[in-house]
Amino acid sequence: MKVLPSIQTPHDLRLIKKELLPTLCEELRASILETASKNGGHLGSSLGAVELITALHYVFNTPEDQIVFDTGHQAYAHKLLTGRQKKFSTIRKKGGLSGFPKRKESKYDAFGTGHASTAISAALGLAIARDQKKENHKVIALVGDGCLTGGMAYEAMQNAGLLRTDLLVILNDNQMFISQRVGALGKALTKLLATKYVQLAEEKATNFLKRFDEFGNNAAKLAKRARSILFPGTLFEEMGFRYFGPVNGNDLNALLEVLETLKDVKGPVILHTVTKKGKGYEPAELNPTKFHGVGIFDVDTGDPLGKSNTITFTKAFSKALVKLATKDSSITAITAAMPEGTGLDAFREKFPARYFDVGIAEEHAATFAAGLAAGGVKPIVALYSTFSQRCYDQILHDICLQNLPVVFALDRSGIVGEDGPTHHGVFDISFLRSIPNLILAAPADENELQHLLKTAFEAKAPFILRYPRGAGVGITLEEELKTLPIGKGHWMRKGKDATILAIGNRVYPAMEAAELLEKKGIDCGVVNMRFVKPLDTQIIDQALKNSPHLITVEDNMLAGGFGSAVAEYLADKKSQVQLIRLGIADKFVEHGKVTELYEQLGLDAMGIVQRIMQAHIK
Amino acid sequence: MKVLPSIQTPHDLRLIKKELLPTLCEELRASILETASKNGGHLGSSLGAVELITALHYVFNTPEDQIVFDTGHQAYAHKLLTGRQKKFSTIRKKGGLSGFPKRKESKYDAFGTGHASTAISAALGLAIARDQKKENHKVIALVGDGCLTGGMAYEAMQNAGLLRTDLLVILNDNQMFISQRVGALGKALTKLLATKYVQLAEEKATNFLKRFDEFGNNAAKLAKRARSILFPGTLFEEMGFRYFGPVNGNDLNALLEVLETLKDVKGPVILHTVTKKGKGYEPAELNPTKFHGVGIFDVDTGDPLGKSNTITFTKAFSKALVKLATKDSSITAITAAMPEGTGLDAFREKFPARYFDVGIAEEHAATFAAGLAAGGVKPIVALYSTFSQRCYDQILHDICLQNLPVVFALDRSGIVGEDGPTHHGVFDISFLRSIPNLILAAPADENELQHLLKTAFEAKAPFILRYPRGAGVGITLEEELKTLPIGKGHWMRKGKDATILAIGNRVYPAMEAAELLEKKGIDCGVVNMRFVKPLDTQIIDQALKNSPHLITVEDNMLAGGFGSAVAEYLADKKSQVQLIRLGIADKFVEHGKVTELYEQLGLDAMGIVQRIMQAHIK
Repeated sequence: MKVLPSIQTPHDLRLIKKELLPTLCEELRASILETASKNGGHLGSSLGAVELITALHYVFNTPEDQIVFDTGHQAYAHKLLTGRQKKFSTIRKKGGLSGFPKRKESKYDAFGTGHASTAISAALGLAIARDQKKENHKVIALVGDGCLTGGMAYEAMQNAGLLRTDLLVILNDNQMFISQRVGALGKALTKLLATKYVQLAEEKATNFLKRFDEFGNNAAKLAKRARSILFPGTLFEEMGFRYFGPVNGNDLNALLEVLETLKDVKGPVILHTVTKKGKGYEPAELNPTKFHGVGIFDVDTGDPLGKSNTITFTKAFSKALVKLATKDSSITAITAAMPEGTGLDAFREKFPARYFDVGIAEEHAATFAAGLAAGGVKPIVALYSTFSQRCYDQILHDICLQNLPVVFALDRSGIVGEDGPTHHGVFDISFLRSIPNLILAAPADENELQHLLKTAFEAKAPFILRYPRGAGVGITLEEELKTLPIGKGHWMRKGKDATILAIGNRVYPAMEAAELLEKKGIDCGVVNMRFVKPLDTQIIDQALKNSPHLITVEDNMLAGGFGSAVAEYLADKKSQVQLIRLGIADKFVEHGKVTELYEQLGLDAMGIVQRIMQAHIK
Repeated sequence: MKVLPSIQTPHDLRLIKKELLPTLCEELRASILETASKNGGHLGSSLGAVELITALHYVFNTPEDQIVFDTGHQAYAHKLLTGRQKKFSTIRKKGGLSGFPKRKESKYDAFGTGHASTAISAALGLAIARDQKKENHKVIALVGDGCLTGGMAYEAMQNAGLLRTDLLVILNDNQMFISQRVGALGKALTKLLATKYVQLAEEKATNFLKRFDEFGNNAAKLAKRARSILFPGTLFEEMGFRYFGPVNGNDLNALLEVLETLKDVKGPVILHTVTKKGKGYEPAELNPTKFHGVGIFDVDTGDPLGKSNTITFTKAFSKALVKLATKDSSITAITAAMPEGTGLDAFREKFPARYFDVGIAEEHAATFAAGLAAGGVKPIVALYSTFSQRCYDQILHDICLQNLPVVFALDRSGIVGEDGPTHHGVFDISFLRSIPNLILAAPADENELQHLLKTAFEAKAPFILRYPRGAGVGITLEEELKTLPIGKGHWMRKGKDATILAIGNRVYPAMEAAELLEKKGIDCGVVNMRFVKPLDTQIIDQALKNSPHLITVEDNMLAGGFGSAVAEYLADKKSQVQLIRLGIADKFVEHGKVTELYEQLGLDAMGIVQRIMQAHIK
């Protein structure tokens, strides 16, 4: 490292000679790779965007000029260049830097991100605020191609195109979205192939691309690509943007030139840059999907390290779904750009005709599923819990109001760990359980998940299954799937001093707590509630008879959560029992390891023990 | 009436001679006008779409062929043609027909609607289900131009363009969205004016439009319009649709011809029709905004009937906002296509530069506001409660997680009346109160609304104000606005037998109930809680000391609502007090008059009295 350490702020960056920038980019890559291999993170996007981010800070006067990232997967170089080198090794660790841009962390983080497709909206807000305050700095939104599949990006472009304030949108096209063909753009362009206009454009594009060193070598191969990177222009122009591009986003000189030129262009402008995901690290270049988000890995080989051998909830879901879909050809699966993360990739491989990846478009995913259900097939929508927040209205208005049998598999419910507050799935119980007709279940382990999935497809009602990220409890998966009674919990053990009513992934910690308490002479029962809705009030009544105290445990907000449902029931029943509710208090949960965070929240076995001991129930 | 009564189903319609259709359309209009003037409803859209709906049922083989409406404002003629003539006079009345398409009501209602921009998603789902079941009926989505401003419509078009199944989208362009300039399309086209290509297109368009009788008379004037109805084609083609149009959607012959032609066209097709909102009823043609959604009115003059003289919550909000914005030039107002409904029209008139209508795009509205707040101005987003469901994730992830001071004015919280289950704002407390950093308040009356609005702008935190549709309680609006203490309720009266903790528009009914109970010898206190979050636990403690029973009353779901928050507090406090929670049980609330529905739900004064009497608290 010879350049990077001298750069404490982008001001330092802007003082160095242009000739040193390639060296700097190499150093940034090395640093990103080293840290990501130890801490995990969004490696591929960050490697691909190194030149882009360096060029932006070199050309623009940050932090007065404001850069808004979309999703923020690509922001590591930005952190390294904006005063956070010393802390960089703490990224994604508890108490360390966030994996995403965060306003509290730095004045260079103009807007916090995590969920996709927000940048143009936020940047437009910053730009209009600038205009109203009669300031004249620049506002730049850096948006990945995938983010453009989200409807809110379209809403924002429509609005920006109308308002015509100065706004530079940089499309960082790392070819994920078009290559995975989740939107119509790529397809539309293919269709246009036959026309003369496109042939002309293709020629032009080939020539154009020849100017770039990197692309020069295989210009022929890239001709096809060129079509798709030239044509989106039409769409953007329709929305009121001036379109410039494509530019090789890994070519520093090309970038510096075009950014200098565009700096003072008026109105809404889109610059289309093409970058290589994983750029500079061969394993990531070869397998961009695998290296999109990574756990810790060996830098030399790219192989993951420290993986548990226990089957994950995701894997159990994936297998059970394939098993069910093999028998029932009406099962149809939908995801919003998370095939690997949700385990739908196995379904996709076996049943490609019944598999739909709609892009980062949860709203459409839900209502599309509603349409499928109204048409008589059996849709399942697989999402992360945190992204299901995007289709709350569609779940309510299009699915539950019509009582349509759509199944949702909400992976990564509860604490997700290193991705932090933007990604924890700790709100779903609170926002879902007030919706009529909805069934809401959470399996205690990966085996129960399979059975609940079968149950869900038979329920003939909207059915949401929430389960956590990561390894299951290590229980054997039963070969034969069973139908479980809806709205019924299950006694794990009985105890005369107190009963713990646990939901989802807090059932096993509750069992562990009961065992620890037993040694201290406290006899605790444990119920695996399985369903938040309908709530098993019979089993609660039994628990009330059995013991004078109830404890609820959940990996969700206390406000409006599962324990809240129990409190409501007890109030309505005029029960005088003492209820202790364990869950997440009224604060966003920061990032860290899942185990660390559950410990901090007092929701691991020891935490449950302590809270029960403190209550002096005996 | 000579044709309409003979049509019990679209099958009957398809038997009659084409020459009779204009008469039928006249009769449909007369029927719609008569009923809407008595029952209120979405008049303008329904009048404009009469020919379109008639032609669709004439050409297509409904109900096998499926028509999905978007929003559903335009569906009255559809109801009249599909076996619901006898019941039509009951539309929007309690127990009568719904004002929207509804699956439970008729097999001709292929998909229920109410919120905008859902039709293409749902229709695509129906089309894919058809393909999977190897059926071959048609699926048609009928979409208003405003609905295309919503991001979900774009997500759906992207997906449909990729999947390429047979799907006919009919754009019913009644010129609201372009004329109100809420999207970039119109603007983009204006910009293109200078180019030769557009001049040519303009000529072509003028000639093209001359062919239509209605447009022929003022073809020159329509040339400008022609540009904007020819050019959106490009956008649709980019998304993978084949674009046809424009066609005069009020010209039956033109429609029949084009629908016959398009019937068997393969793949995703968009047909652009231009209709006149309010068509055939002069007051509505002249003032389409006023007649978009109406209460009861005099058919001859178009003047509203039976309006209360009491100032509405909307009006009080509107006045207070203008007052505050006059003093504070950083207040900036945003709505999502509801300027009149939310009362922002007064703000728009006084401060056009600080007013933003983003189209039917709640997601963007919220994050755009977050950007404005991050940029240091004071945004307020005015929406209906039910539509705020669309931006739940943005409120959580973009606003509250960053603790940005965005104010939301949620009009039409609680029961909205005749629009029914798709529009009741009875979920907001449940989905919002688990979000950290958020302040959630509900004024008891229109005077308190003003003070809370001032309080909200001073709070330096995300602040949501929810208040009901319709007339206030008739209290005098104080001239000077006051800052109220955040998280503090207010004793309305004290009583030793029980205390009613009431929120928002249930405070006055609670007071009335307390007065009635007094006559029966029960001494009830009443607290106006004002804030759901932070909850005033001190005042609850006082109530606990004062009386042995607590009753909560709210116009929200019981699950996760305000009473649930009180139950949580009492559980955490280990209070042994008896809590009675009044609110909405776990069922969607159908349509009817607001007063009828509150009576049915037991949430009016008499209902509160009865529930307290039944509890035998004394």
